[in-house]
Amino acid sequence: MSTRNLADEDLTNAVLASFAGAGSERFKTIAESLVRHLHAFATEVQLTEEEWFAGIDFLTRTGHITDDKRQEFVLLSDVLGLSMLVVGMNNRRPPKATESTVFGPFFVEHSPAFENGDNIAEDFSGEPCFVSGRVVGVEGEPVAGARVEIWQADDAGFYDVQNGEEPNGRGHLFTDEEGRFSFWSVKPEAYPIPADGPVGELLDAGGRGPMRPAHIHFMVTAEGYQRLITHVFVEGDEYLDSDAVFGVRSALIAPFVRDGDHWTASYDLVLAR
Amino acid sequence: MSTRNLADEDLTNAVLASFAGAGSERFKTIAESLVRHLHAFATEVQLTEEEWFAGIDFLTRTGHITDDKRQEFVLLSDVLGLSMLVVGMNNRRPPKATESTVFGPFFVEHSPAFENGDNIAEDFSGEPCFVSGRVVGVEGEPVAGARVEIWQADDAGFYDVQNGEEPNGRGHLFTDEEGRFSFWSVKPEAYPIPADGPVGELLDAGGRGPMRPAHIHFMVTAEGYQRLITHVFVEGDEYLDSDAVFGVRSALIAPFVRDGDHWTASYDLVLAR
Ligand SMILES: [Cu+2]
Ligand SMILES: [Fe+3]
Ligand SMILES: [Fe+3]
Repeated sequence: MSTRNLADEDLTNAVLASFAGAGSERFKTIAESLVRHLHAFATEVQLTEEEWFAGIDFLTRTGHITDDKRQEFVLLSDVLGLSMLVVGMNNRRPPKATESTVFGPFFVEHSPAFENGDNIAEDFSGEPCFVSGRVVGVEGEPVAGARVEIWQADDAGFYDVQNGEEPNGRGHLFTDEEGRFSFWSVKPEAYPIPADGPVGELLDAGGRGPMRPAHIHFMVTAEGYQRLITHVFVEGDEYLDSDAVFGVRSALIAPFVRDGDHWTASYDLVLAR
Repeated sequence: MSTRNLADEDLTNAVLASFAGAGSERFKTIAESLVRHLHAFATEVQLTEEEWFAGIDFLTRTGHITDDKRQEFVLLSDVLGLSMLVVGMNNRRPPKATESTVFGPFFVEHSPAFENGDNIAEDFSGEPCFVSGRVVGVEGEPVAGARVEIWQADDAGFYDVQNGEEPNGRGHLFTDEEGRFSFWSVKPEAYPIPADGPVGELLDAGGRGPMRPAHIHFMVTAEGYQRLITHVFVEGDEYLDSDAVFGVRSALIAPFVRDGDHWTASYDLVLAR
């Protein structure tokens, strides 16, 4: 198929045909689908050259603001609902298993190691909070030695990496023989996703707010079980029904209870095989 | 509309609804269409989390390799046929007007100024080539004082900016009273688009070649006329029917004729009002 003198559907078909020799069937399927939907989008809105340039510029700035501490493309995917769509499609689990939600842009590899009962947020501002629970399978069996990664923001809504600080409000530990884990941290608060970059412009232009309801991130890995990436949300938060990244599941909401000078929360994480 | 407990179409609808308060109708139209097609793509291919991560990584690297001398997002748009689609939709011109083609990633603002007859490629390797023509309107009227921007690769297929050199094979001049322009350069040769970055990986995975047929880029601006962004292609080039960026138009092909120790080419650029 010649690539000459093409416009509109003929052009789309030529681009599709160009992937005929793809090394993998899966790559070909994805590339073809992407091209079809991308061209359909541009055609449907009759994208102008000025808008195309604005799109190129938006993506360029999204790339330039992204580094090992800030992932603006993940944030973009989050606010467009793509992250949660992909999470949903790939994590259709048994009813009893804990549901997944978005990974978010603030995970960092090689977090500090803690023991159960340690304080993972020594230098964080916020009200002390004791968090505990068990990692179990859908049959209720304890999962001993599961790796539990935790990350959360301080009471001003900032993750350690946003302030360029040492790791704080972040760490991993392992469950005991009974599948139990526990740690001290601070009570999480609702926070705005970073709105000083391209994604912030998008939210502004869309008349959308940047707020996420208060939550703690968990990632649990254990031999013989599916990896779980999720949050535990704080019951009663005012943004539970207007999460900027569409990540709330009712079953992921836990009561955070005041107990004298601190808060306590307990939540069991149920892994699918 | 609550953002809680959403998956699949309900999720897509909630993301669409989130743009209800957009400041501009046009932005809303574009955002909604983008979300619909993006979600339809991910759903159609049942995008896995691993593939989603690969996509995020691809975009991140595309952003990081982009600077003021290399525009990998433009290159990506080019090889996906999006650039040519947008060019086509936005430049439906009177039949006599010169057709547009892709802008490409190698334009640089503030090119050197030349006089007609000057050599714009003093330090370029390649066979000398004298290029001339007229800028006219569709009624045949000469367009005096039109600004003609020219950029091209050397005979090894590299633009000046790819070698980090001083401007070369690049410049602008103005047409005379008769609308005439002329300059010395080198005969352009077919070249591969930069294949050492993410776009190169995409072409590789797609079983596609990186070659573009030989061409000279022109951008013509003149008071009272539409801006023209186009190429003049070299007649007889072996890649005229397999351009990696789908940019060839038969009417943009000109004979390059050997004349003793050099080549000559002549092409008239016809502007629409
Ligand atoms: Cu679509
Ligand atoms: Fe978070
Ligand atoms: Fe070129």
